Amino acid sequence: MALETVSEQTCFGGKQGVYKHHSVSTGTDMTFAVYLPPTAADGPVPVVWYLSGLTCTHENVMVKAGAQCWAARRGIAIVMPDTSPRGDGVPDDPERAYDFGLGAGFYVNAITQPWAKHYRMYDYVVKELPEVVGENFSLNMARQGITGHSMGGHGALTIGLKNPGQFKSISAFSPIVSPMNCPWGHKALGGYLGPDEAQWAAHDACALVETARERLPLLIDQGDADDFLEEQLKPHLLEKACNKTGHPLRLRMQPGYDHSYFFIATFMQDHINWHADALN
Amino acid sequence: MALETVSEQTCFGGKQGVYKHHSVSTGTDMTFAVYLPPTAADGPVPVVWYLSGLTCTHENVMVKAGAQCWAARRGIAIVMPDTSPRGDGVPDDPERAYDFGLGAGFYVNAITQPWAKHYRMYDYVVKELPEVVGENFSLNMARQGITGHSMGGHGALTIGLKNPGQFKSISAFSPIVSPMNCPWGHKALGGYLGPDEAQWAAHDACALVETARERLPLLIDQGDADDFLEEQLKPHLLEKACNKTGHPLRLRMQPGYDHSYFFIATFMQDHINWHADALN
Repeated sequence: MALETVSEQTCFGGKQGVYKHHSVSTGTDMTFAVYLPPTAADGPVPVVWYLSGLTCTHENVMVKAGAQCWAARRGIAIVMPDTSPRGDGVPDDPERAYDFGLGAGFYVNAITQPWAKHYRMYDYVVKELPEVVGENFSLNMARQGITGHSMGGHGALTIGLKNPGQFKSISAFSPIVSPMNCPWGHKALGGYLGPDEAQWAAHDACALVETARERLPLLIDQGDADDFLEEQLKPHLLEKACNKTGHPLRLRMQPGYDHSYFFIATFMQDHINWHADALN
Repeated sequence: MALETVSEQTCFGGKQGVYKHHSVSTGTDMTFAVYLPPTAADGPVPVVWYLSGLTCTHENVMVKAGAQCWAARRGIAIVMPDTSPRGDGVPDDPERAYDFGLGAGFYVNAITQPWAKHYRMYDYVVKELPEVVGENFSLNMARQGITGHSMGGHGALTIGLKNPGQFKSISAFSPIVSPMNCPWGHKALGGYLGPDEAQWAAHDACALVETARERLPLLIDQGDADDFLEEQLKPHLLEKACNKTGHPLRLRMQPGYDHSYFFIATFMQDHINWHADALN
């Protein structure tokens, strides 16, 4: 599996790299970033996946979240995938909206046309990219955690809950906790999966908490000045679902914080530590 | 003096703001950023100026350097100015090169045409903006330090050395230490100040070290994998000048680091602490 190195730079004593490869899942070239802490030079290190939100690429978290500082201190690698397939022949939202199509893969495998051919971000993130990074970097793939922001928080919660053998720790920043119950989710799941809501439930964190095989504790930070809180994110729905089933949830409402990377950067240390404590 | 708030966001318990005002120095509107740590709510806090490098605006350091984390911990405010005047009627490099004109004010007052009318970044940073921020924010203007990167490192060293009463601490990331002795400096100082090299010496850190009234210690970090090291930055020239005059310099060559914000972010904590130790 050929991997093209786009860039590699020294960062907090470790290495911040950007790589490109051809993805079988999406049928496109895909770009992703990996941060390796200094300890990766001595042997495989645990890895945390960071799934990004709407409009993002691998780059936003890489340059704005300050995650490398804490990952270096705890000996944790971070893998940062893109948020959708891109390139020639990849269809976009007909109106080029920011919340569907390019930059908005929602971490599902599309089953409707014209999306089904390329929009397979679930398989890409859960199956293909772990193989690629496991083969090419000094990572301990038996110790993986997953986090993300907004749409990527939805991705982290749903992928983590569906694959407890693969992921040992889960957290999220201002996640979409129930796409079945918000406009972003209706548009995305309706668009990629069609009208059958049974399909949607397989990608809804609140629904998945009710049927989870393992009760991995969830850490969620959410700003109370987040413009998307009431209409799209709705963390109280997850709180309700977790209370109902006894799923351990630490939901922290953070006063004054919005939906931006200034919020994410502020609480990144806590999230890296949350995963490092579970993985080390 | 009217100040327009562009944005204010909670960040590490403090406030990251972006503001716009009409500058008398440059004759243009200017945008700048201020980070206020949580302690600013209790009374005036010391302030560190961060001067940015070629092509940057106030935004690069604000989103990429992770400085707010350390500033919050030490109770330090950070002021982040733009790197040149901008807007209608502001001339740019005739070939739109990145190293002269827009984004490349070099922290001097131009005396040649057509630059002299707007390119007055020395007065803007040393005189006008300190008044503006002192009036509008909870800052202790008797406790100011200054740092910067590359062209902004040149700005921090020269402005700090020329104004020891105003600035109590100085540091720099990969600074241009002697614009009289590198291509970027020749182009900028020749362009803005004309051919008289006596004018240039007033904006050359190596020359200023020889005549400095106060011997404020300098902290400089420089990556040894920086593409600009040999031709443009030349920290050994500053080391030589400091040795000659007994000026205290802590020059740290950092193995493997390049010229990017991954380098700056890595050593930002040390620089904030350097200033906080001097200012608190």
